[in-house]
Amino acid sequence: MSHTSRMSGTKHTGPTDCTKPAVRPDPTAAADARARITGVVPPVVTPLTEDREFDAASFARLVGRLLAAGVDGLFVLGSTGEAAFCTDELRTRVVREAVALAAGRVPVLAGVIDTQTGRVLRHLQAAQEAGADAVVATAPFYAVTHEPQVRRHFEILGARADVPVYAYDIPLCVHAKLDADMLVELGLGGALAGVKDSSGDDVAFRRLALRNRAEGSPLTLFTGHEVVVDGAFLSGADGVVPGLANVDPEGYVRMHAAFRRGDWTSVRSEQDRLAALMEITRAATSVTGWGKGVGGFKTALMLQGILSSNQLPEPFEALGGDEVEAVKAVLGTAGLLP
Amino acid sequence: MSHTSRMSGTKHTGPTDCTKPAVRPDPTAAADARARITGVVPPVVTPLTEDREFDAASFARLVGRLLAAGVDGLFVLGSTGEAAFCTDELRTRVVREAVALAAGRVPVLAGVIDTQTGRVLRHLQAAQEAGADAVVATAPFYAVTHEPQVRRHFEILGARADVPVYAYDIPLCVHAKLDADMLVELGLGGALAGVKDSSGDDVAFRRLALRNRAEGSPLTLFTGHEVVVDGAFLSGADGVVPGLANVDPEGYVRMHAAFRRGDWTSVRSEQDRLAALMEITRAATSVTGWGKGVGGFKTALMLQGILSSNQLPEPFEALGGDEVEAVKAVLGTAGLLP
Amino acid sequence: MSHTSRMSGTKHTGPTDCTKPAVRPDPTAAADARARITGVVPPVVTPLTEDREFDAASFARLVGRLLAAGVDGLFVLGSTGEAAFCTDELRTRVVREAVALAAGRVPVLAGVIDTQTGRVLRHLQAAQEAGADAVVATAPFYAVTHEPQVRRHFEILGARADVPVYAYDIPLCVHAKLDADMLVELGLGGALAGVKDSSGDDVAFRRLALRNRAEGSPLTLFTGHEVVVDGAFLSGADGVVPGLANVDPEGYVRMHAAFRRGDWTSVRSEQDRLAALMEITRAATSVTGWGKGVGGFKTALMLQGILSSNQLPEPFEALGGDEVEAVKAVLGTAGLLP
Amino acid sequence: MSHTSRMSGTKHTGPTDCTKPAVRPDPTAAADARARITGVVPPVVTPLTEDREFDAASFARLVGRLLAAGVDGLFVLGSTGEAAFCTDELRTRVVREAVALAAGRVPVLAGVIDTQTGRVLRHLQAAQEAGADAVVATAPFYAVTHEPQVRRHFEILGARADVPVYAYDIPLCVHAKLDADMLVELGLGGALAGVKDSSGDDVAFRRLALRNRAEGSPLTLFTGHEVVVDGAFLSGADGVVPGLANVDPEGYVRMHAAFRRGDWTSVRSEQDRLAALMEITRAATSVTGWGKGVGGFKTALMLQGILSSNQLPEPFEALGGDEVEAVKAVLGTAGLLP
Repeated sequence: MSHTSRMSGTKHTGPTDCTKPAVRPDPTAAADARARITGVVPPVVTPLTEDREFDAASFARLVGRLLAAGVDGLFVLGSTGEAAFCTDELRTRVVREAVALAAGRVPVLAGVIDTQTGRVLRHLQAAQEAGADAVVATAPFYAVTHEPQVRRHFEILGARADVPVYAYDIPLCVHAKLDADMLVELGLGGALAGVKDSSGDDVAFRRLALRNRAEGSPLTLFTGHEVVVDGAFLSGADGVVPGLANVDPEGYVRMHAAFRRGDWTSVRSEQDRLAALMEITRAATSVTGWGKGVGGFKTALMLQGILSSNQLPEPFEALGGDEVEAVKAVLGTAGLLP
Repeated sequence: MSHTSRMSGTKHTGPTDCTKPAVRPDPTAAADARARITGVVPPVVTPLTEDREFDAASFARLVGRLLAAGVDGLFVLGSTGEAAFCTDELRTRVVREAVALAAGRVPVLAGVIDTQTGRVLRHLQAAQEAGADAVVATAPFYAVTHEPQVRRHFEILGARADVPVYAYDIPLCVHAKLDADMLVELGLGGALAGVKDSSGDDVAFRRLALRNRAEGSPLTLFTGHEVVVDGAFLSGADGVVPGLANVDPEGYVRMHAAFRRGDWTSVRSEQDRLAALMEITRAATSVTGWGKGVGGFKTALMLQGILSSNQLPEPFEALGGDEVEAVKAVLGTAGLLP
Repeated sequence: MSHTSRMSGTKHTGPTDCTKPAVRPDPTAAADARARITGVVPPVVTPLTEDREFDAASFARLVGRLLAAGVDGLFVLGSTGEAAFCTDELRTRVVREAVALAAGRVPVLAGVIDTQTGRVLRHLQAAQEAGADAVVATAPFYAVTHEPQVRRHFEILGARADVPVYAYDIPLCVHAKLDADMLVELGLGGALAGVKDSSGDDVAFRRLALRNRAEGSPLTLFTGHEVVVDGAFLSGADGVVPGLANVDPEGYVRMHAAFRRGDWTSVRSEQDRLAALMEITRAATSVTGWGKGVGGFKTALMLQGILSSNQLPEPFEALGGDEVEAVKAVLGTAGLLP
Repeated sequence: MSHTSRMSGTKHTGPTDCTKPAVRPDPTAAADARARITGVVPPVVTPLTEDREFDAASFARLVGRLLAAGVDGLFVLGSTGEAAFCTDELRTRVVREAVALAAGRVPVLAGVIDTQTGRVLRHLQAAQEAGADAVVATAPFYAVTHEPQVRRHFEILGARADVPVYAYDIPLCVHAKLDADMLVELGLGGALAGVKDSSGDDVAFRRLALRNRAEGSPLTLFTGHEVVVDGAFLSGADGVVPGLANVDPEGYVRMHAAFRRGDWTSVRSEQDRLAALMEITRAATSVTGWGKGVGGFKTALMLQGILSSNQLPEPFEALGGDEVEAVKAVLGTAGLLP
């Protein structure tokens, strides 16, 4: 399978040897809503000060570091980006800041996560006005829906959006799995530009990739699972949205480059290294669930000097004491402390 | 915040023979945030026009009918009230309209349903400004939380609210069950005034009721399950929040009155009748999940001449054709057609 | 609704005042496979010695005590009766012993719990040969099945059985809920004599009871939930299969008698008392899951002098130390220590 | 019991170029319980006649074909091998037949699937007496257990077994996921020789593989997921147990050989081909769940002339008509019809 033919227009007109282009993409690329976004697109964490205000300075350091590492896009307001915790005002501010910091060098994807269609449309409108290059929407949640409603939900979003819409498949949060056949049909119909798969279901992802390819690849496919990106590349992923890339963006950029040049030995060893680093998300003992993972990321970023604080939004509390030491130990072993 | 005075002041100063008072409660009752709300509190549906705008005229007819039937409160923006579908603007409008229509005769409880604490606090503020007498909040959802976060969530809400806070236990929607011991402790600590139980777990509800009573009944307990209210009364429920009461409020008012006077034969036969009527929520074949139940309620209300339309919010579509006929047949059998 | 008309032939020819008959049922009753079994049917625990051998002497004491208390039947090899742990040889022995001890005074129902139809049929045959008066079968489990297979499973069991077959609805163990319409149809078709509902779904149970009554009550309905039997009686249960009745059979017999004479105040207060006693199943801290509940029952029975040991089958370990004290405290409060 | 000698003795002393040996392994290999089993180990289906008797002739054809294709072992009485449906007598017969047919050329692993420890031990004993070279056991099921019981369960099995014990991680059937740390500790302690992972959780599998490697690889790791074996190999799988290998064993043998020689391009293209073939498990429309997958395999085997019938055990019914045509179409496209 060739990925080069799927790289549209302006973005990859430079080097076409399937390695990471040394020259960053054309600044006009992100403005092209038709541009297919691939590669490494970190779900950027949302830094908070100790008193839980948005920490713009830390956010700027973080985004600057990601861009310097050569990521292909920024995904703000995902699950890792704490969309579920941000007020509408903060959501808009995060998109604005990211768009300003990206300055057209890479596209900014914005999560438009909310319960049902009507509320998601409001976020869609706000994200577009704030300059997002694409939006990422989950299936409806809270009120129980099934396939016909999920399909209609994405059709409405696709019809109303001026930017590409990506489906976010995250059953852990929305308690429904997106069907592969439905997704490909929504891609063929133009409602969806791609899928961010955080379903934890690699069997279904393989089938999605096969079905997508059989239909001319209407969808761009991303995996969100940090530790099995190599397998996802084998299955047919076009890119990856790894929370861990906040902490080690270079690792994911290298892994993607190795994948592009077909060097599976390098892909695998890079993946094994990153999988070991992922233990930072198991350091917390005072907190479980969402805060355990994002708490690990934020603590590592604090230890790396990128974030001023590892604060978490209510009702979570930041990791402390031994937990911070445990994260530090994993980072040290990985050679990722300053 | 204190919610200690059980069966407070004005509301039940009239007839004290445990039957439904013939005279409606004193209009000043709802203004007393310390008043314990009990009895029949329907989760009011949110009527829409064919083109999915809020239908204020239908809403006024519906609320008027509920008040005339003698309900003890109104719960707007619950799951049945389609909170998950309403924009923030519509949410505020619904609370305002309900408060105006209730005119202090009964308290208005407003759902403040959203994913995590920060977002819920915004709804709490808006609901209070719109005149709600109490708010109803679920556990956090979307991002995974566990008991310590759930507890902290309600503690924050309780500390920040100027009106009583009720916990809404609805695992079907939020995918977490509220623990009985935690709830009673939150009641004792003043964070919670009560619980609306839609957990589907009658065993846990019995234990909650026993624990609550053993601690001096800090919590008022409501069940949301239309067809087993009689059992909930036996277990210790103080009231009921039945979606079906949109369609047959008199039935629930009669059942509650029978319970208050200890007439279990009447409680049971009324409940059996209402359980048969609940078949209107099984009429839909074109839609599943949330829309099947609320679609049945709205269709019945349309057939009764209360609502102008049985429209549902996106991504759901209204029941039609044979489904409407099926609802009509159940209503007819129950003698509830005009 | 009258329960008396549903009491078949020999069993209730004595006193018909709807109270518990002072004279035990005719010994020939259990032999009549057409006899409808109702009332209190404890799921008898299977006593083990310290070294995990079957403790026949303790079993005899336990059964004798249950019969003396006036129970209406014995259910061996249920979930509480540790069917999932017993070898085939022990299963057969337990049925034989129970049949011998009952000596025709009450019917013996035997669990025939296994994964799929073919294996269940073997247990059915063995149970019949050992003298069981009826068998109790779950939906198939382990290999995933859906409604058509579940229906066919019960049809095959019904066709092959020489004794009445009861469906055991226990989603906690088999991870599937039995559909009310299907159950009533299986009852009308003669495959099923009744249902033991341990589904934890009181809403579905109410609907099952209504559907069953509307079709002429082909099914006898039991609830397995110790703490909400009063609500189940309101819904339409004909009997109860409470694990807690191993420890306090008199309480359940009294509650059933009160129900039969329509004395809901007594039903409710007895139920509240038993619900408090159920805290013995929360005493364990060293064990979770199945062992927590049955461990509590067995420990209470040991403290009452009925069982020689509170041993549990592998891979569970008996409650000890503080856990035993906690059970003792609950029993003491209830006045149930010798 | 020790399973320490990785890649032991006789089996891999021949060609050591990491490709599949042209010469079959030494017949004495299987007798060596210390031999580490790796590679392709199909979960063999259990053929039935039209009237649901064991079809020994078809079983012999199937096993002969698998051996001719060069598989590395045979796994009988797995989920695919319908252990949950077979009586004890049939289970013993299937092991005996497989052992006789393998004739020491490859090891025979036998599923010992049952609800709890005591019952599993009986199957373990029977499987050993029938000549099984290893056994495969799930976590306990039906009665709810948690980690301490699961650990104890495997410790008991390991202590009592004379052959290597493999843990079968299949939450779809037993509704519990095996913890990676626990598994590695059980491997280090000698209780477990390996893991067959059918958990559907590739993230957890990566972590298991990393933890296992960090501890000196006490466990041999198999994946059971037919369509993502390539990713599992990247993660660290030593072998694969693919139901689809009943239908195309050569494909899996080729893929494993390509993996052994580091030819990822071939691994991936073979996997994509096999993933497309897996559509035979989606052909059924009359049946869902277990029967859909195994029904597809058996129908394909019937069309290939290996099985005389595609019969399924009760309560399932064989695929027919259009379903058989749909399987045939997929096979035809894959060039796998005779």
